[in-house]
Amino acid sequence: MAGAFGLKGCQKIRGPQIRSLLEAKDFFLFDCDGVLWHGEQAISGAAQVVSTLIRRGKNVVFVTNNSTRPRENYVHKFCRLGFTDVMLEQIFSSSYCSALYLRDVVKVRGQVFVIGCDGLRTELQDAGVPCVEEAADEPDATIYDCALAPDVKAVLVGYDDKMTFLKLAKASCYLRDPQCLFLATDNDPWHPLSSGRILPGSGSLTAALEVASGRKVTVIGKPSRFMFECISSQFRGVDPAQCLMVGDRLETDMLFGSNCGLDTMLTLTGVSQIEEAQEYRNSELTTNHSFVPDYVVDTIADFLPAFEELDEQSN
Amino acid sequence: MAGAFGLKGCQKIRGPQIRSLLEAKDFFLFDCDGVLWHGEQAISGAAQVVSTLIRRGKNVVFVTNNSTRPRENYVHKFCRLGFTDVMLEQIFSSSYCSALYLRDVVKVRGQVFVIGCDGLRTELQDAGVPCVEEAADEPDATIYDCALAPDVKAVLVGYDDKMTFLKLAKASCYLRDPQCLFLATDNDPWHPLSSGRILPGSGSLTAALEVASGRKVTVIGKPSRFMFECISSQFRGVDPAQCLMVGDRLETDMLFGSNCGLDTMLTLTGVSQIEEAQEYRNSELTTNHSFVPDYVVDTIADFLPAFEELDEQSN
Repeated sequence: MAGAFGLKGCQKIRGPQIRSLLEAKDFFLFDCDGVLWHGEQAISGAAQVVSTLIRRGKNVVFVTNNSTRPRENYVHKFCRLGFTDVMLEQIFSSSYCSALYLRDVVKVRGQVFVIGCDGLRTELQDAGVPCVEEAADEPDATIYDCALAPDVKAVLVGYDDKMTFLKLAKASCYLRDPQCLFLATDNDPWHPLSSGRILPGSGSLTAALEVASGRKVTVIGKPSRFMFECISSQFRGVDPAQCLMVGDRLETDMLFGSNCGLDTMLTLTGVSQIEEAQEYRNSELTTNHSFVPDYVVDTIADFLPAFEELDEQSN
Repeated sequence: MAGAFGLKGCQKIRGPQIRSLLEAKDFFLFDCDGVLWHGEQAISGAAQVVSTLIRRGKNVVFVTNNSTRPRENYVHKFCRLGFTDVMLEQIFSSSYCSALYLRDVVKVRGQVFVIGCDGLRTELQDAGVPCVEEAADEPDATIYDCALAPDVKAVLVGYDDKMTFLKLAKASCYLRDPQCLFLATDNDPWHPLSSGRILPGSGSLTAALEVASGRKVTVIGKPSRFMFECISSQFRGVDPAQCLMVGDRLETDMLFGSNCGLDTMLTLTGVSQIEEAQEYRNSELTTNHSFVPDYVVDTIADFLPAFEELDEQSN
């Protein structure tokens, strides 16, 4: 966890230090929203940073807790926002990793009840994991009289902007069976909107189910290590010491890096502020130190001058 | 908390001991569902117990976390199920007490955003507490474009079988204002249905909002003391030492009694089993001891032989 180029903890770095970091690391993991873009608006310079890293022979992957779209759509989104050289294999979303977990780790036999958006269901189907059909219930169906599928072996909760009481109640009923697995794509509590409003995240919906079921969820996405295991299984020879995790959220991205033994970088274009990171650093509770980034930049566009320095150096 | 007639803790009592308890106590607080009835089915003998207590000059009140119907409807329900001598003044529901809290304790100035059933809204309106109109949103409105009321000073969460993502998102947005109060009628995690299915309770919906807002809710209903304060303010001279709280749920009813300094009785016609009470009693964690009832009966109909004994005694 100790940063290679200074004492651990919120080190704000610039050109020369970023250059050293670029030389030292082979593998760059980027969170997406808040790091590369906000919604449909790319962060200025981000696309150039990503394509320069790839051109320089670095491994670049994208690690996102957003479970709402299948990876296919991510490729389109990257392209649409100017990240033109990103391929499917570089994208590790919490929905994709959830599908791998269900298929390859727990080898689920039976259907999965999904609280989530269509993209999550698509990932499961692409991986051959059967899901309960999205409610064909009558509009006035209730938990008193609706049908429950007989062979549900897992409940998987992701972000769901069509969440209803009936879905929550059905999931609670399925979870009464201790053999039924209880998984969440991620545990993000909320997401910011540009209007200043917020969206409740999967972590919010999951908390409701944890209380109703009296059970504890297993989280697939960041900060759980499983997403790094997915990456390691698809990119042979990944060495954590050679990786840099770049994200905007201390409680997911930085903790994920910390959990996986990666150096971490906070970019200030998203959710978390440097003051929060400093509070964690100064906390007497040592578990809080796992939220502290090794490095801090204002934006990943701060990589660009470092690339120029490298070019000058090599000329 | 020590039972007056034996060592504290899960004492299963019968005729003679119940008789002594009836002689010793002036004030009986009953939870409703699981104690007096299951849904629309009265528990055999319960109506007779209640009317006998009243006829014998005991004070009897009903303390329910169910916020779905106004007290008026409770009177009708009592009557319909054979409890013919119950009056409005005896009913302390979490919705009624929430209205008193908002009006008299925090003296809310502005509107209340309610997640809950119509009965909750009715109680607030009866108390003169203005609520945000139930969504007149277009069916496809989202948190991106819906209207938010400008003067929301409290979010109140109760059981809501019409819960939607939009309601959750709106409440999360209101709660970003630290001046906006965050209240729950109760914290019940789930409710049993006769089919073996369960309903997520207010506690489940509240947990979702706690995560999305990063705030902690204030609970009005049991096990909070506030419902007992409502009773004390309306029945002058209530002495906790003279009270018996009868309920079916350790984590709400027994803890409520314990929090208010009342003797407690668990009846086994509802949610909690005697084994759970014994586990709490045997726990090394002393906070768990607050869940332990002083007395246990199979059903409150076990009071009936005690009444007969008293009658024989007085003849």
